[in-house]
Amino acid sequence: MALLSELTPILALVLCMVAGFLFLKSRAPETNDDEWVENNEEEDLAHVPYSPQRYPEETMLQRSKDFYSLMNQRRSVRFISPEPVPREVIDRGQLQVVLTQSPGHLDTKHKIRLIVEEEEEVNYRQRMGDKWVHDLARLRTNWIKEYLDVAPYLILIFKQTHGILLNGKKKTHYYNEISVSISCGILLAALQNVGLVTVTTTPLNCGPQLRLLLKRPVNEKLLMLLPVGYPAADATVPDLKRKNLEEIMVAI
Amino acid sequence: MALLSELTPILALVLCMVAGFLFLKSRAPETNDDEWVENNEEEDLAHVPYSPQRYPEETMLQRSKDFYSLMNQRRSVRFISPEPVPREVIDRGQLQVVLTQSPGHLDTKHKIRLIVEEEEEVNYRQRMGDKWVHDLARLRTNWIKEYLDVAPYLILIFKQTHGILLNGKKKTHYYNEISVSISCGILLAALQNVGLVTVTTTPLNCGPQLRLLLKRPVNEKLLMLLPVGYPAADATVPDLKRKNLEEIMVAI
Repeated sequence: MALLSELTPILALVLCMVAGFLFLKSRAPETNDDEWVENNEEEDLAHVPYSPQRYPEETMLQRSKDFYSLMNQRRSVRFISPEPVPREVIDRGQLQVVLTQSPGHLDTKHKIRLIVEEEEEVNYRQRMGDKWVHDLARLRTNWIKEYLDVAPYLILIFKQTHGILLNGKKKTHYYNEISVSISCGILLAALQNVGLVTVTTTPLNCGPQLRLLLKRPVNEKLLMLLPVGYPAADATVPDLKRKNLEEIMVAI
Repeated sequence: MALLSELTPILALVLCMVAGFLFLKSRAPETNDDEWVENNEEEDLAHVPYSPQRYPEETMLQRSKDFYSLMNQRRSVRFISPEPVPREVIDRGQLQVVLTQSPGHLDTKHKIRLIVEEEEEVNYRQRMGDKWVHDLARLRTNWIKEYLDVAPYLILIFKQTHGILLNGKKKTHYYNEISVSISCGILLAALQNVGLVTVTTTPLNCGPQLRLLLKRPVNEKLLMLLPVGYPAADATVPDLKRKNLEEIMVAI
């Protein structure tokens, strides 16, 4: 579980949010393991036995059905209620910046909204081009992103393009975009697990300004922005249907 | 839940595996929604109310703690038991090719192993270069991938770089790599939920040969290969520690 911070009161306030479930780190599949300690360059790392919990088959089947049922409800939700969320429910992630609804931070959230909407208007009017705008039309999105002000939390997920070791050298982060995205998937499962909603957004061209606003270093690049909260009372979703298994899986 | 296939007996056999939990599709954050129907180009898509399950706060907290506790046990595991896994436990994914342990398919799994090991040997000896090999050393991996023969299931995750519409035109898949990776994260959560293990591998340079072996079309590119099963009795993991929340999250 997340540890209570002992930093400033504001950080302490926010860091009360228990790291729910998440392991967003620079994971490099088969080239680096999911946990890594920044400064440990030793080749001689102990390998320890691993015997995780094992369930009887009937339990596996039931858990599988329950989790499927849970995740099948999940949708991207763009209409989020301003209602506060218990602060103990949280994600852990690689270089996430979590913005909360405390008064001093409403200002920062609003600044984020101004940056995003300004860039998104250019995106919609120019950068994305006709085809992309057309493809988006049925989602009824535009550059107005009310959830950035309204949602109690904004989670900005940054990837570390490389690390910096104690000796100042660069540490390669293999497959950092895939790794962080995988972790984001686990975050989505965690949010679904507790009945919160979000939408995974990738605000085009907003990264550098947001990085500067939030005072993040140059080796951190914004990957995704997730507004998190309860769904708004009048929330809607596009009436899309998921593909069947046969359409997406080939068994050999 | 996954529907039983009515295709050939072999496919039917394998497609008995219920789609556990997964929604690996071409998700395009904020540019396309998580479900999409290949042929529907209509802009006039209905938007419907969305009121998902809502839990009392105490329940949210408990679920959060339980899921965290579950996911915190998760490790990449390279030593997988040959023991069969109940076939109802499965993932749903975008263009996944799931190989099972039925006799006719041991041959294909072995062919996969031959391809991967041949390329991985070149990777380790040449392509990855000294630094990458050095960075990997503490994981004690090499080009020998026994789990490819041993594990009861191999899940190959392909991303669709673009779709093909009924009229033959290309359909853009925005952010397809991030989207598929996010889905992979949900798959990892699902596997952890039922007590199975895997390791997310990205066998460098193996994609084209595997695509041809499995007769996948040119718009499908291999993204990841996951061997899935129970951990081997003597399974070990590198003794790495996950970062603390304070090291990976900045709250503002």
